[in-house]
Amino acid sequence: MRLRPTAFLLCLLLAPALRAEDGYRLWLRYDRVSNDLLRAAYVAALPRVDLAVPSGHTNPVTTAARDELREGLAQLLGGEVPVRVVRQDDPGLLPPPEGYRILTAAKAPLRIVANEDAGILYGAFALLRALEMQRPAGELSALSAPRIQRRLLDHWDNLDGTVERGYAGRSLWNWFTLPDYLDPRYRDYARACASVGINGAVLTNVNADPLALTAPYLAKAAALAGVFRAYGVRVYLTARFSAPIELGGLKTADPLDPGVIRWWNAKADEIYHLIPDFGGLLVKANSEGQPGPQDYGRTHADGANLLAEAVGRHGGIVMWRAFVYRAGASDDRTKQAYEEFKPLDGKFRDNVLLQIKNGPLDFQPREPFHPLFGAMPRTPLALEVQLTQEYLGGSIYLAYLAPLYKEVLDADTFRPTAGSTVAQVVDGTLDHHRLSAMAGVANVGADRDWTGHPLAAANWYAFGRLAWDPGLGSDAIADEWIRQTFGNQPEVVTTLSALLLGSREVVVDSMMPLGLHHIMARDHHYGPGPWVDGGRADWTAVYYHRASTEGVGFDRTATGSNALAQYSPEVARAWGDLATCPDGLLLWFHHLPWDYPMHSGRSLWAEVCTRYQRGVDGVRTEKRQWESLRNMVDPERWAHVEALLQREERDAAFWRDSCILYFQQFSKRPIPPGVERPAHPLDYYEAVQLHDVPGSPDSR
Amino acid sequence: MRLRPTAFLLCLLLAPALRAEDGYRLWLRYDRVSNDLLRAAYVAALPRVDLAVPSGHTNPVTTAARDELREGLAQLLGGEVPVRVVRQDDPGLLPPPEGYRILTAAKAPLRIVANEDAGILYGAFALLRALEMQRPAGELSALSAPRIQRRLLDHWDNLDGTVERGYAGRSLWNWFTLPDYLDPRYRDYARACASVGINGAVLTNVNADPLALTAPYLAKAAALAGVFRAYGVRVYLTARFSAPIELGGLKTADPLDPGVIRWWNAKADEIYHLIPDFGGLLVKANSEGQPGPQDYGRTHADGANLLAEAVGRHGGIVMWRAFVYRAGASDDRTKQAYEEFKPLDGKFRDNVLLQIKNGPLDFQPREPFHPLFGAMPRTPLALEVQLTQEYLGGSIYLAYLAPLYKEVLDADTFRPTAGSTVAQVVDGTLDHHRLSAMAGVANVGADRDWTGHPLAAANWYAFGRLAWDPGLGSDAIADEWIRQTFGNQPEVVTTLSALLLGSREVVVDSMMPLGLHHIMARDHHYGPGPWVDGGRADWTAVYYHRASTEGVGFDRTATGSNALAQYSPEVARAWGDLATCPDGLLLWFHHLPWDYPMHSGRSLWAEVCTRYQRGVDGVRTEKRQWESLRNMVDPERWAHVEALLQREERDAAFWRDSCILYFQQFSKRPIPPGVERPAHPLDYYEAVQLHDVPGSPDSR
Repeated sequence: MRLRPTAFLLCLLLAPALRAEDGYRLWLRYDRVSNDLLRAAYVAALPRVDLAVPSGHTNPVTTAARDELREGLAQLLGGEVPVRVVRQDDPGLLPPPEGYRILTAAKAPLRIVANEDAGILYGAFALLRALEMQRPAGELSALSAPRIQRRLLDHWDNLDGTVERGYAGRSLWNWFTLPDYLDPRYRDYARACASVGINGAVLTNVNADPLALTAPYLAKAAALAGVFRAYGVRVYLTARFSAPIELGGLKTADPLDPGVIRWWNAKADEIYHLIPDFGGLLVKANSEGQPGPQDYGRTHADGANLLAEAVGRHGGIVMWRAFVYRAGASDDRTKQAYEEFKPLDGKFRDNVLLQIKNGPLDFQPREPFHPLFGAMPRTPLALEVQLTQEYLGGSIYLAYLAPLYKEVLDADTFRPTAGSTVAQVVDGTLDHHRLSAMAGVANVGADRDWTGHPLAAANWYAFGRLAWDPGLGSDAIADEWIRQTFGNQPEVVTTLSALLLGSREVVVDSMMPLGLHHIMARDHHYGPGPWVDGGRADWTAVYYHRASTEGVGFDRTATGSNALAQYSPEVARAWGDLATCPDGLLLWFHHLPWDYPMHSGRSLWAEVCTRYQRGVDGVRTEKRQWESLRNMVDPERWAHVEALLQREERDAAFWRDSCILYFQQFSKRPIPPGVERPAHPLDYYEAVQLHDVPGSPDSR
Repeated sequence: MRLRPTAFLLCLLLAPALRAEDGYRLWLRYDRVSNDLLRAAYVAALPRVDLAVPSGHTNPVTTAARDELREGLAQLLGGEVPVRVVRQDDPGLLPPPEGYRILTAAKAPLRIVANEDAGILYGAFALLRALEMQRPAGELSALSAPRIQRRLLDHWDNLDGTVERGYAGRSLWNWFTLPDYLDPRYRDYARACASVGINGAVLTNVNADPLALTAPYLAKAAALAGVFRAYGVRVYLTARFSAPIELGGLKTADPLDPGVIRWWNAKADEIYHLIPDFGGLLVKANSEGQPGPQDYGRTHADGANLLAEAVGRHGGIVMWRAFVYRAGASDDRTKQAYEEFKPLDGKFRDNVLLQIKNGPLDFQPREPFHPLFGAMPRTPLALEVQLTQEYLGGSIYLAYLAPLYKEVLDADTFRPTAGSTVAQVVDGTLDHHRLSAMAGVANVGADRDWTGHPLAAANWYAFGRLAWDPGLGSDAIADEWIRQTFGNQPEVVTTLSALLLGSREVVVDSMMPLGLHHIMARDHHYGPGPWVDGGRADWTAVYYHRASTEGVGFDRTATGSNALAQYSPEVARAWGDLATCPDGLLLWFHHLPWDYPMHSGRSLWAEVCTRYQRGVDGVRTEKRQWESLRNMVDPERWAHVEALLQREERDAAFWRDSCILYFQQFSKRPIPPGVERPAHPLDYYEAVQLHDVPGSPDSR
C-alpha cells in the first residue's frame, strides 16, 4: 500500500492526540523520514531488500530481521518495501562471524549479507539506523563485525521482582506469570538489545538465589530464552555456589567433592535440556557474604572449573567475578582482587572468563582502570561496567556514561608494551584468546520508558555499541542515539549532544571530584555521606578519604598502601608522580595537605570547593540547555527530564554544601569566593535520612 | 478542523502498526464512532456543549471537564465540537450535590448542568460514555446524582513501592521522585476515577507507616493532591496510631493524654496547611499487630474521636476500620468485630465512619454480609470491599466482582424491618446519616494496563459505578465497561458479558464452594491449603473447615459458635435452617455429615467434588468463550487473557485435586463419577511451595 502524502500528514497531525510519548519505543521509532527528497532517494535505493545467508533458509532469526525491516521501512518510507531471505552463493562476500555487509547497486535490491543468521539481524538494524539518522541514500553500503564475542547485560534482578541497584521500577521479568504469559515487552527488550548488538542476558542477580536453578524457574527462564532466541539473545543465569547444599541436600559444596561434581553436571544437563543454547553461568563467590570455594579451602579456580566442566560439555561458559574482598584482609580494599586472582592466571579451564569491574573499587564516578587488566595474559578477561547508576544518582541524575566506558577501554595498561589498551585485553586480540566478553549491569526495569530517566536509555545504547566496537567515539554514539530517539533537527542534536557529553563530568564534580571516592551515604548510595564511619572499615567513607587537619586523600603510593605497584611501571610512575597524576585521580592515589598547590593555581582546599560548585553550575547549564529544547521535544519527555534536572540541581547543592562543611572541619579554611555558602550547618545535612530509596535494602 | 473520512480511515488502518494495544487507556478510549449515520446524528445533536454551573467560572475542575470533552468528542466524532463554561441561571434545573443534568434540545447546544464543579466533570464523562456506548443520539438527556457521598479507593501501598496484596506491579505512587516529577499516569489515574465517580483516594497502606505523616511525605502527598484536585479526587492518608511516639518523641499514644491530643491537632494543622481539601484519615488499630487505643485501656471510640477532633476542625473525617480480632479472644473469629463495636454505637464523633468489610471474616470468595450492618443505627457505616483479588487468584484469575458487591449491597438486614438492605445502611438513608462512604481496596499498580489482568479493570469500573449508584445491575455495568473497553460489536458484547457475569461463581466453585472458607495457602493466599494447621489457630484452614470423619463445616448455629445470633432473627432463622440456608453459605454456618443429602440429590461429599469439577469446567467454558473472540479483540489483550485463562485452568485443577484428596481422607468415600481423577497423590500437592508470590511477604 502506498499512501498519499495528505493522508499521511493528517495521520501525523493526529498522532499526538492518539498517543502521548511514553518512551517505550526507545531508539526504535521509525518515524517517517520528513525530508521528501531524501525519502524519495531512499525509496529509489531500496526497491527491494534481500537478506542473504549461505543456507538461504528462513528461520526465526531471519524472520525477525525480515519483519523488523518490513515494518520499519513501511513506517520510515510510507510504503511497503519487499524483503525476502535468499541464498548467499559467493563466499568471498561473507563478513566475519556475526558481522554483516550491506551492498547497494543501482536499480538492484539492497543486499544484506551475513555468514550467520544473527548477522542478518544486525545488518537489518544497521540499515534502519542509517535511515533513522537520515544518512545519504548513496552511503548505505557497510561492512561491520563485532570485536567482542559476548556482549551481555547483567540483570541484578531478584526473583521477588525487586532489582538490586535498579532505579526503573520492578524487574522486567514477571516470574510469577512466567512461563505462561509472555509479556510483549520481553520481545521488545530483545529487539532493543539486538539493535545494538547485545547478544546475551544474565537474567538473575549475582547475589544469587538458588531457587533460580530449580525446575519451575528454569522453565520460566526457558520461556524467556524462547522469546529472545529470534533476536540472537542467549540466556545466562547466576549460580549460587552452595546450591548443591540448598537444592541438592548435599552436606558440602566443595568443588572437589565427587557428589558436588555430579550434582552440577546433572544440573547443567537439566538446564541444557530446557535451553539448548543456554549461554552459561555468572558467579559471585566468596564476596560480600556469598558462598564460594574458599569455604572449603579451595581456590577460585577450583570453583570456576567445577562449573565450567559442567556447562562446558554443552558449549557453555562460566563468568567468574573478580569482585572479591574481605574485611581487613588488606591495608587497602582496592588491592585485594589483584592479590587474589593474579596468582591464578593460567589455572582456569578454557571456557572460563574472569569478569572484572572497570575499576578496582566499585563503580565510583571515576576510578582508575582495574590493575588486573594486562596482568593475567593467560586468562580471558571480561570487562564489567555499570549502566545502572548505583553511585551516580540512580535515575534522578543525568549521566551519559559512554565517556566513562571509553576511559577504561582506551586506558593503556603498558602490559606488555605501550599501546596495550584495556580494549585489546578485553577483545582478546592482545593475548589471542578464543573467548571475549563485555558485560553491562543493566539499567532497565518495568518502568514504561525502560530506564526511569528518559535519557538513561542512552547508556543501554552506548554499552551495546561499544561492546560491538570499543573504537567508536562517545560523541558518535551520542549522535546516533539522539537522532534515533529525538529526531534529526540540528538544534536538538547539537544541544542534546553537548548536554550528554558533559554530563558525566558534572556528576563527578558534584559528588566526588579530584579522585575522592566512596563518600556516599550508607546502604542506598544516593546522597553524600563523607561522615560515614563505624562498622566495617572498608564500608565507611572515612576509610577512603582519610581527611584530617593534615590533609585529604588515600595514599596509594609506596609511602602508603602502594596499590600503584599493581600497575605497570609506566602507569605507576605517571600516577605516582604529582606532576603527571591527572587531577581526576589525585586523591585516589595521594594524600595531600589542604594548601597543596594545584595546577589551577588554587590550593587543594579551594579546588575541592570550586569543583563542588562547578558540579552545581554544571547542572544549571544542563537545565538551560534542556530549557532551550522545550518546544523541540515532545512535552511528556521534556517535562520528565526537566523535573529530574530540577531535583538534580537541588541534590547537587546538597552534596556541595554537606561535603564542603564536612571537610571544612579539617581544612579549617574559609569557603573561597565564587562558591555559594551552605544554607544550613553541617549537622542539618548529616541528619537528613532518605527512606525507601529505590534499589537498596531499606535503610531504616 | 474537520477531517475527510478517507484521511481518517487511513489513520485507523495505520493505527495498529503505530501502537500495539497495551491497555493503558482503560475504558476511556474514545475510538471514532464507526457507524456513519450515528456519528452524523451525534454531530447534529452536539453543535456545541455548554457546561453550566451557578458561578459560570472556569476553574481547574471545569477546565478538566472541558478539555476531556473537547478531546474525547474530537476523537469520537472526527471533528471539533466547541465546549464552553457558562453561568447556570435557573436554579430549578440544578441537580443534587455532585450530580449532573444533561439537557438536549433541537438545534441548541447540549447543556450539562451542575450545582458543583464536580458535577460538570461527572456529566462530561457520562456524555462521553453514552457516545462510546453508541446510545441513540436522541437519548442523551440524563439526570444523575451519587447515592453515596465518599466513593473511595483504598491503596494498600507501602512507601517502599510495594503494594500489600497488590498484583499489578509496583505502587502507582513513585514516592522517591515525588514531589518533583508528576508522572502523567497520576493524572490518568484521577481521570479514570472521575469517569466512574470515585472522589477520593487513600494513598497509603492501612498497615500504616508513620513516615507517611512526616513533612517530606506530606509534600509528596500534596503533589498528588494537586494533580487529583482537578478531577474531584481528594487525598486521604492512613494514620499509625502510635505516630505521636514514633514521630513526636512522646512517651505514649494514649488518646486521652493532653500531649497526644496536642500532637495530633498540630499534625492535622500541618496536613491541612499543605492540603486544604485533605479528605481525612483511615485507621487500622488494635488489629493484626497494629497499635491502637486498647494498648492504653481505651476504646476504639476514644481512639477514633481523638483523630476526628484533630481533622474535624478542618472538615476532615476519620474512617475507623472494624476489622479487628485477637487470637483466642472468641470461639469464632467472625464474631469479634460485632462484639467489639456494637456496644460503641453512638459513642463516635459525628465525623467518624466505621468502615466494615463486606463479610465478617476477610474477603473470602463468598461470605455472608457483615452482621454489623444494621446493628449500629447511630453510627454511619462505610462498606469496604476488595477490588484486588487477595483470595480470588490475584491477577491470574478472571473474576468480575460486581455480583459479589451486589450480593452484600442487596442483602436484607431485616433491621429494623424487612427491606432494610445493606445499601440503605451504607448510603445513610436508613438511619438518616449526614456521612456515607464506600471504599474499595484498589487493584491498580504501575503495570501498564493498570490491573495486571486485562479484564480486572472491570472491577475498578464496577466499584465506582456501584458506589455512585448501588442500584445498578452487574449486567448493566458489565455492558457499559465492555462497550467502552472492547467496542460495540454485538458478539463481543454478548460473549464477554456472559464470561464476566459467570466468572465470580467459577472462582467460588474452583476454590471454596458451598460456604467453605479460609482454606487457602498460608501467607500468599494464592493456592489451596486445606491442610494448613499449626501456629495461631484462626490463621489456619482446619480452624474453619473442621473436617473430620464425622463431616465438614463450621457450626455457627446455636449448637456451635452461634455467630448467627449476631444477625436479625429473620436472617438467623433463614440461614440457620438447613431447608432455607442457601448452598453457597451451607458450610459457613453448618457442620454436616459427608452423606448429608443436598438439594441436588447428591451427598454432601459428592457435591463438594462436583463443585470443584464445576469450577474447572467453568474455566474451560471461559476459555472457549474467549477463544471465540480471537479475531474480534486486538491480539495483545487477547493473548494476555488467553495465557491467564490457561494458567487459571491448570491452577483450578490443582485446587480441585488437592482439596478433594485432602477431604477424602475424612470422607473416606470414592470420587464420584464425572469428576476427574487427581494426577498425583495428596502429598504431591502439599509439597508444592510457591515462592515470591506478588503482594505477599516472602513465604520462604
